[in-house]
Amino acid sequence: MSDHQHDTDPLPETAPGILAEDRAHLFYSWSAQRALRPMPVAGALGSYFWDYEGNRYLDFASQFVHVNIGHQHPKVVAAIQRQAARLCTVSPAFGNDQRARAARLIAERAPGDLDRVLFTNGGTDAVEHAVRMARLVTGRPKVLAAYRSYHGASHLALHLTGDPRRWPVDTGTAGVVHFFGPYLYRTAFHARTEQEEAQRALAHLEQVIALEGPGTVAAVILEPVVGTNGVLVPPPGYLAGVRELCDRHGILLVADEVMAGFGRTGRWFAVQNWDVVPDLITFAKGVNSGYVPLGGVLMGPRVHEAFADRPYPGGLTYSGHPLACAAAVAAITAMTEERIVEHAAWLGTEVLGPGLRELADRHPVVGEVRGLGVFWALELVRDRDTREMLPPLGPPGGPPGPMDELAAACRKRGLWPFLHTNRVHVLPPCTATEQEVRTGLEILDEALSVVDPR
Amino acid sequence: MSDHQHDTDPLPETAPGILAEDRAHLFYSWSAQRALRPMPVAGALGSYFWDYEGNRYLDFASQFVHVNIGHQHPKVVAAIQRQAARLCTVSPAFGNDQRARAARLIAERAPGDLDRVLFTNGGTDAVEHAVRMARLVTGRPKVLAAYRSYHGASHLALHLTGDPRRWPVDTGTAGVVHFFGPYLYRTAFHARTEQEEAQRALAHLEQVIALEGPGTVAAVILEPVVGTNGVLVPPPGYLAGVRELCDRHGILLVADEVMAGFGRTGRWFAVQNWDVVPDLITFAKGVNSGYVPLGGVLMGPRVHEAFADRPYPGGLTYSGHPLACAAAVAAITAMTEERIVEHAAWLGTEVLGPGLRELADRHPVVGEVRGLGVFWALELVRDRDTREMLPPLGPPGGPPGPMDELAAACRKRGLWPFLHTNRVHVLPPCTATEQEVRTGLEILDEALSVVDPR
Repeated sequence: MSDHQHDTDPLPETAPGILAEDRAHLFYSWSAQRALRPMPVAGALGSYFWDYEGNRYLDFASQFVHVNIGHQHPKVVAAIQRQAARLCTVSPAFGNDQRARAARLIAERAPGDLDRVLFTNGGTDAVEHAVRMARLVTGRPKVLAAYRSYHGASHLALHLTGDPRRWPVDTGTAGVVHFFGPYLYRTAFHARTEQEEAQRALAHLEQVIALEGPGTVAAVILEPVVGTNGVLVPPPGYLAGVRELCDRHGILLVADEVMAGFGRTGRWFAVQNWDVVPDLITFAKGVNSGYVPLGGVLMGPRVHEAFADRPYPGGLTYSGHPLACAAAVAAITAMTEERIVEHAAWLGTEVLGPGLRELADRHPVVGEVRGLGVFWALELVRDRDTREMLPPLGPPGGPPGPMDELAAACRKRGLWPFLHTNRVHVLPPCTATEQEVRTGLEILDEALSVVDPR
Repeated sequence: MSDHQHDTDPLPETAPGILAEDRAHLFYSWSAQRALRPMPVAGALGSYFWDYEGNRYLDFASQFVHVNIGHQHPKVVAAIQRQAARLCTVSPAFGNDQRARAARLIAERAPGDLDRVLFTNGGTDAVEHAVRMARLVTGRPKVLAAYRSYHGASHLALHLTGDPRRWPVDTGTAGVVHFFGPYLYRTAFHARTEQEEAQRALAHLEQVIALEGPGTVAAVILEPVVGTNGVLVPPPGYLAGVRELCDRHGILLVADEVMAGFGRTGRWFAVQNWDVVPDLITFAKGVNSGYVPLGGVLMGPRVHEAFADRPYPGGLTYSGHPLACAAAVAAITAMTEERIVEHAAWLGTEVLGPGLRELADRHPVVGEVRGLGVFWALELVRDRDTREMLPPLGPPGGPPGPMDELAAACRKRGLWPFLHTNRVHVLPPCTATEQEVRTGLEILDEALSVVDPR
């Protein structure tokens, strides 16, 4: 079309006005398009956002689990505005002060000897590059990834993913092999204790490596705390055991911290909860709370020295984008000065953990509570003994099941929940106040009554 | 590391200060790391940028061929600042006024019935999603891509790429097949005229499709004007012929306009120069001149209706990022109001085309001049008869060859060129003034004398 007559229309200021353009011209992620009626967001601040009808929601999803610093943090907003006035973009081949400073701030918080960053646009391309690095450093083709994982939506990253989102595109990608990680509540190993689950999960991984051929395996990639697939916190000893297996066979360990990193678990990086040092860390989301798209790969000398004299075959136009890096510098600095990561840890230990366990005591629909920091899940079941899952959210327009009723009950009370299959993930910003979290827990308490088994 | 003592250091204000952090903590794209000495950019405006020593450069590379609207356009900067104050980020599942408006502005400028946009973070993920859509819509596995092409740096996109950047990672990706496109100056078809080149290139593609099995081919992906691999302008009839071949076999045509789109060829989309309507267009760069990372896939009903009731399996956290889309709305609006695309076309016809052909007349090193709009290449040769290429740029630290001498001669005179193998690509912003372009041509005239055959 070439009709530009409407170009200078002011932006619509009502939900129907926005949706008219939206439904005519936008294609949405992960969705069937016809029945979509997305809710336009009018504004946001701190732990809240609101729509055009004046409904205000406590954000227990942190949007897409990415506004770790909360909405519209004034220091990050100001940094973006300053940098926009100064220099929005440069080629990735030039130097840039914000890019260099962001890399230093990340490296200073990194575990072990991880000291160097390739910046990307988001988490998916971080995984793409981390896997490429591991393959080139080791000269080996295979990558082991866990079932019940999510690693991104490119062809490769979606093939690494171990959840049903992979199925529609799964044509088989050479070199991806899936294994089972620990998940005691629905154990693949017939384990009864956390210790048993850790031991058996490690024995399983050891067998997979042996049967795939240790000399063919470039990397094991895992989420240190599995995110969308259930907030699966590893049992003590598991990550250290994986590290040891990797070391024994010259395999690189890639920790995908896109969701878990930058405060979500109450540490800068989730692996720091277990004192494990991977070879590569992928990150995005919390690094600047997604105020400007940014991701990256953090690596140690074993990786970057392999490319000292041999060109690394990969890159992207917006690598180390000045505006995105300025937002990261401001976000990391504010998180440090305001002790936001420590606050997230405290919220987990003192407020969310005890509060969610109280909910479990009162609501038989809660089968298990898992988490740490501001990263929690309630697994909802029809029956605590059989652990039969509550039926998942239905498609838009279909008959509402219990998870839809739960969502509606939360929203009606001003809480925006993160629901996935039979679970409620509890994911407030790291900056949420104690009172906000307690308000959210009270709403969850009321809403869970709607789906408790009768 | 956990030493945060330097957190509140002010940002360094000298190149050595920036490079100290840079060289300790940054990993660069497409490079061997040890010998890198990136030049920190201190600022930029319009067609110029400058370093910390006060050297000012006329930007004949548009950075990474992406600042189509020039540096620091005041309306785009102001739009970013306004949107930052209002709402930096939302989940892609919510609606957003800037996202919807950006999609409408793009659709209004699109060829034919392409009316819907999936926003991504950049060009590579746009290609990933376009290929996935084509495969799912057709139910076919293969994608045909051209030799001498660049489609991005993810595993899939780099395998689609038909230049040496693919080689270091090429483990073979099922379903990617390469074909030869038209390139009369170094014809693969022994053609003597543009017409012959077009006919023979189409006959070749027809054979490849027939021998691969038309029923197995989901898409043909091509750059309507090949970018980094030489600014290869298709001969008349070629793109229409590819469209016809695709139609005959139910194959989708994907135009990768990441570099060519949004004004670079003097049209909003390069395919509009030949009145060809593809099924999918991938874009990034010029859509908002990279002020905030943004890319996308533009599609028509054949594609989006396939996902009306079936969920599209793919997405990303920053899809339709409000800040990135606000920059797109401002950039597209300014480009329209200030007639920037028309200006780029005029620069090509009246200034760059004649000016570069004059350079070719005076400099025997120039083998061919190709281009349109603000998208040109000079192919440099040792001998016009044999067309032997000038040796390419050497690795950093190595002995300088003629292309290194050419680069130095340009930079010394205040021109930042885009050099690739044996070519100078001439890529000023679409907003460059006639005088700026003439200044650049004068500098090129002097610099080419350095490498003319003796």
